Amino acid sequence: MERLEEVLSQIKPLDEKAMQAARLRQDNLTKPRGSLGRLEGLSVRIAGMKGSPRPKLEQKAIIVMAADHGVVAEGVSLYPQEVTRQMVLNFLAGGAGINVLARHVGARVVVVDMGVVGGFEPRPGLICRMIDFGTKNMARGPAMTRQQALEAVEAGIEVVEAEVAKGLDIVGTGDMGIGNTTPSAAICAAITGRPVEEVTGRGTGLEDERLRHKIAVIRRALEVNQPDPNDGLDVLSKVGGFEIGGLAGVILGAVARRIPVVIDGFISGAAALIATRLCPRAKDYLIAGHLSAEPGHRRVLEYLGLEPLLSLGMRLGEGTGAALAMGIAEAAVKVLNEMATFDEAGVSRAEG
Amino acid sequence: MERLEEVLSQIKPLDEKAMQAARLRQDNLTKPRGSLGRLEGLSVRIAGMKGSPRPKLEQKAIIVMAADHGVVAEGVSLYPQEVTRQMVLNFLAGGAGINVLARHVGARVVVVDMGVVGGFEPRPGLICRMIDFGTKNMARGPAMTRQQALEAVEAGIEVVEAEVAKGLDIVGTGDMGIGNTTPSAAICAAITGRPVEEVTGRGTGLEDERLRHKIAVIRRALEVNQPDPNDGLDVLSKVGGFEIGGLAGVILGAVARRIPVVIDGFISGAAALIATRLCPRAKDYLIAGHLSAEPGHRRVLEYLGLEPLLSLGMRLGEGTGAALAMGIAEAAVKVLNEMATFDEAGVSRAEG
Repeated sequence: MERLEEVLSQIKPLDEKAMQAARLRQDNLTKPRGSLGRLEGLSVRIAGMKGSPRPKLEQKAIIVMAADHGVVAEGVSLYPQEVTRQMVLNFLAGGAGINVLARHVGARVVVVDMGVVGGFEPRPGLICRMIDFGTKNMARGPAMTRQQALEAVEAGIEVVEAEVAKGLDIVGTGDMGIGNTTPSAAICAAITGRPVEEVTGRGTGLEDERLRHKIAVIRRALEVNQPDPNDGLDVLSKVGGFEIGGLAGVILGAVARRIPVVIDGFISGAAALIATRLCPRAKDYLIAGHLSAEPGHRRVLEYLGLEPLLSLGMRLGEGTGAALAMGIAEAAVKVLNEMATFDEAGVSRAEG
Repeated sequence: MERLEEVLSQIKPLDEKAMQAARLRQDNLTKPRGSLGRLEGLSVRIAGMKGSPRPKLEQKAIIVMAADHGVVAEGVSLYPQEVTRQMVLNFLAGGAGINVLARHVGARVVVVDMGVVGGFEPRPGLICRMIDFGTKNMARGPAMTRQQALEAVEAGIEVVEAEVAKGLDIVGTGDMGIGNTTPSAAICAAITGRPVEEVTGRGTGLEDERLRHKIAVIRRALEVNQPDPNDGLDVLSKVGGFEIGGLAGVILGAVARRIPVVIDGFISGAAALIATRLCPRAKDYLIAGHLSAEPGHRRVLEYLGLEPLLSLGMRLGEGTGAALAMGIAEAAVKVLNEMATFDEAGVSRAEG
């Protein structure tokens, strides 16, 4: 608990002075004020996060955390549980969606086993922070102990701190875990207070009857466990997942170092709900990468007060939406850094 | 007219066979079907445009066309006309928004003088296709002759063909011209039939009274000139602009070579209206880069049946929205080309 408390105490407000300087520069660049829309405000926010009026986003990483979920025993996913493990190997081989999109934006992919069933032999490129071989079935009791929840969050903090040591200007969150839209919906319902049926979606492609079943399973998990919505670790332990806890730790660890965090879709959003329940101020450092097709994601973003950069109907997870959006965030700071001012370019200003 | 007719006759339907092969591959990549949302359909469309099941988008260009507009005499813009010329110099020096965003996505910027007041001495990097030193004031008569309209379109065709000769996989359209939201709104009203007040916006930042005045000027231009909505060259000559005609030519010339065209905002949209009026099939090769904050742009995209990739409240023009969206289009084809299939990666498939 000491590690987590220490990190929470290090999370500071945005740097207003850096934001003012960035806003002043934006307003003097050779374009009508506001004409680059959300890129302008985003660059100013990033200046505030990084405490620099001309921040750089050169060293980029997507941290993809994988784990399994006991609740798949209830039949909440179309894919067999072994796919979690197979996809981790696909990440390491470079053939998954996140590998392609991270390469596209110049981000490295950091793959972490937070608790995949069966585990892995040591492999180059795989970080092992396994808490257990998958969670317990939350429809019958807590997914994990409170101690495991804390360990998962602290593991995420340590993973991101190791990346900071290598050089990190911005980080994106990614997930892999067959069945993990189910705990994410449970977390979303518990923390935002929205009805379960409103935050539960088809995941990898459930049909109507299976969707109704999934909703019933989530309702049962919430009834059986009675998570305390004011206690992030309680929610995580009762209806969460190891990768979700790990990503909450990544968020908190990054934010404590003033590193902007691009949140991917629904599972990453659930991690952000846990993280901001532990430290509400962490929200200021979050960039919503995209709006997932998973319906609960909209509720997560509304609750966090974040507006997504992209809305392309994506629902793959892995950090794919975060990676694409990271390219937009980098573009925003490049505009701030590289465009000429009216004076530099000798361009006349508008009337008035 | 022969050059234009020849190009129009070369525009072919999308390649269905390439699209089927691309769709089949998308459905076998290691992700739930459809989980990359609009990236998947976009990659399939691009396969159809390029006539290849695994298209590449490596060589990229944004063609930025600049010209002046006689209608600025009516007081429709906040910026002095000299800014068109100053911004062309800014493009050549690399300090404008489009320079930054094109660099970000690895696209070259091709700057074309289609008719800037005062003209330019020959300069490295500036292509001179000047039709005249700005259009005439369309509120008092035709903006240009029909012959000039044809010359502008054919100049655009030749500019893009020269880029094809250098190597070009995808092209984006960009514009610079103080006052050019005014002819764009007139073109939009003439071709789509929407009321002038619905398609006219604040441009670089007009206040309410100036906006009302701009609407009145556009209404007068349409009344005085009576453009024939079924005749693209007639609309262009009466209420258009040289850069708008040039961009219509860029679109048609690219499409005839099966090169996808990323359309920027409202001015590029007006060019797309002219181009698709000359050849409706050209629409199949257009990618709507973003939704501009300029209100008429939504009407243009609705009329063309295109859905924008981005919606970031941008309204700068220059091709900035096209450049950002080009990065998304490239990501889409990289997914198609670089992701592993289920068989390649040894990943289990979903039930059923």
